[in-house]
Amino acid sequence: MSSKPKIALSIGDPNGIGPEVLLKCLSDPSLTDRFHFLVVGPSEVLSFYQARWGLDGSFDRMECDLPSGFQVQPGQINADSGRISMESVALAVDLCSSNKVDAMVTCPISKEAISLAGYHFPGHTEFIADRVGASGHLMMMVSDHLRVGLVTGHIPISQVSQGVTGDKIQSTIGIMRRSLMQDFGIPNPRIAVLGLNPHAGDGGVLGNEDRDVILPEIIKAREAGCEIIGPLPADGFFGSDTWRTADGVVAMYHDQGLIPFKALSFGSGVNFTAGLSIVRTSPDHGTAFNIAGEGKANESSLKKAIEYAALIVQKRNLLA
Amino acid sequence: MSSKPKIALSIGDPNGIGPEVLLKCLSDPSLTDRFHFLVVGPSEVLSFYQARWGLDGSFDRMECDLPSGFQVQPGQINADSGRISMESVALAVDLCSSNKVDAMVTCPISKEAISLAGYHFPGHTEFIADRVGASGHLMMMVSDHLRVGLVTGHIPISQVSQGVTGDKIQSTIGIMRRSLMQDFGIPNPRIAVLGLNPHAGDGGVLGNEDRDVILPEIIKAREAGCEIIGPLPADGFFGSDTWRTADGVVAMYHDQGLIPFKALSFGSGVNFTAGLSIVRTSPDHGTAFNIAGEGKANESSLKKAIEYAALIVQKRNLLA
Repeated sequence: MSSKPKIALSIGDPNGIGPEVLLKCLSDPSLTDRFHFLVVGPSEVLSFYQARWGLDGSFDRMECDLPSGFQVQPGQINADSGRISMESVALAVDLCSSNKVDAMVTCPISKEAISLAGYHFPGHTEFIADRVGASGHLMMMVSDHLRVGLVTGHIPISQVSQGVTGDKIQSTIGIMRRSLMQDFGIPNPRIAVLGLNPHAGDGGVLGNEDRDVILPEIIKAREAGCEIIGPLPADGFFGSDTWRTADGVVAMYHDQGLIPFKALSFGSGVNFTAGLSIVRTSPDHGTAFNIAGEGKANESSLKKAIEYAALIVQKRNLLA
Repeated sequence: MSSKPKIALSIGDPNGIGPEVLLKCLSDPSLTDRFHFLVVGPSEVLSFYQARWGLDGSFDRMECDLPSGFQVQPGQINADSGRISMESVALAVDLCSSNKVDAMVTCPISKEAISLAGYHFPGHTEFIADRVGASGHLMMMVSDHLRVGLVTGHIPISQVSQGVTGDKIQSTIGIMRRSLMQDFGIPNPRIAVLGLNPHAGDGGVLGNEDRDVILPEIIKAREAGCEIIGPLPADGFFGSDTWRTADGVVAMYHDQGLIPFKALSFGSGVNFTAGLSIVRTSPDHGTAFNIAGEGKANESSLKKAIEYAALIVQKRNLLA
């Protein structure tokens, strides 16, 4: 039995850059020497791209059904490619749940294609959480120096204020804290919570939510033993070195967390779904249909996602 | 007559770090050799801090009235200190308006202190714009590589969506464009406009404002000859090198502009009030009452603000 971590890779949308970055990683000995990969996807899809660029590399593979008449067409969006992407994810989840692999890393899917195929999920995260029966989960952006979780996600800015509820803040803090301990091996993590409004509301002059909704949850978490500061003015937090002192950062909305994360991670960030029984990471890019099939896609984020998945498996095993 | 640029310095709140950073700049020959300074403030306030740290340096000074019985008390907030700060600003504005100086640089004031003194302005910017009778103005954050202007400013996040109006967007674009040409010497500036919602609304799925309010204004500006792109997803913009290709960035709200500006400027940013007949810059920090009088305050942002004011004067003169 191999002692290398076993990692399932879902291929993502067959017409996006997923199979390309996946094959590039599989021809990288710095990865294949250290990890045992199981690629979940139809052989036809992989051979199409292998033939195109002469990429080989040997790896285990688990078959997915190929819808009859399916042809790989880089850049195209259709129901069949959506179906293949989700079947690949579903099988990878089951491999994790049954402990046949230690972790899964997902290549990008197209929301439009999976919706055409009848999958009514906003994305990977919700589908996976549903399949493993998770009671709560949190998409975290992770890089070597910064880990960010969001209280609200893909909603219009006009709905952010009402979306920032005490329950949502408390559960975000809770999942992040447990993940920092269990998945990142930090015994007493220090969490920073950003304010919702400019200057964290400036004592109520710029909005009451920071004082009336966020602060009470921070106090509650602190009383429960969490090392936590906030609500902090977000611009000052990222403009000084304060962010370097936090093990995890709770942001109130998408751009508040994603802008500084992407600006400060310089492309080395990955996504991690915290709060699940299984370990799942993903690169920080999408299907990039505009360059699919051209051989230009950069595999470094998928590589990082694989490294993080293995690191999290290792941390969890230390505690097990 | 000296050919050095003449710069008026308002002293800011006498109990904040303003006088300290100002005196530190005035003892820096790399500044005094190149600029002619006129400090606007009571001699008692300056002597208080000069005596404390033995800072001298010779400079011209314009007197401000000292309220009877006033004593400098570092860290304290009161009406008298508010009155002195605003009188200093008002006199500096008048020096600019009457062409006795080329530009003014303002040290930080306390909103609370000026409000106690009966000044009902949110800050410097509105007071100065009012005094010079400006029809429109725009607070821009400026560093060597990034210039950001905001469509909405110090308002709660719950009011941002309704604050992002077509008129406000168009005037922000217009003032920024004229300023980039006139104040920064860029003949055909390239402006990037950020989206309001995550992923710039994702075709309407995450809010309609990007498509229905912002995009039409961008098209209008483009048709009027402006080189302009957007609405752009803000996280991708700052996470890639795209921001380096823009001469100016229009952000929709405070944290969307200030977070990346501060994160990417590493403390070297200054504020500039675009759209005024006079030239006014300021450092990017506040009164810092918590360290006032301790000698710890860093003058580098005020120094940068002075350098930028002189640079803008030079650019304007080239066009005059």
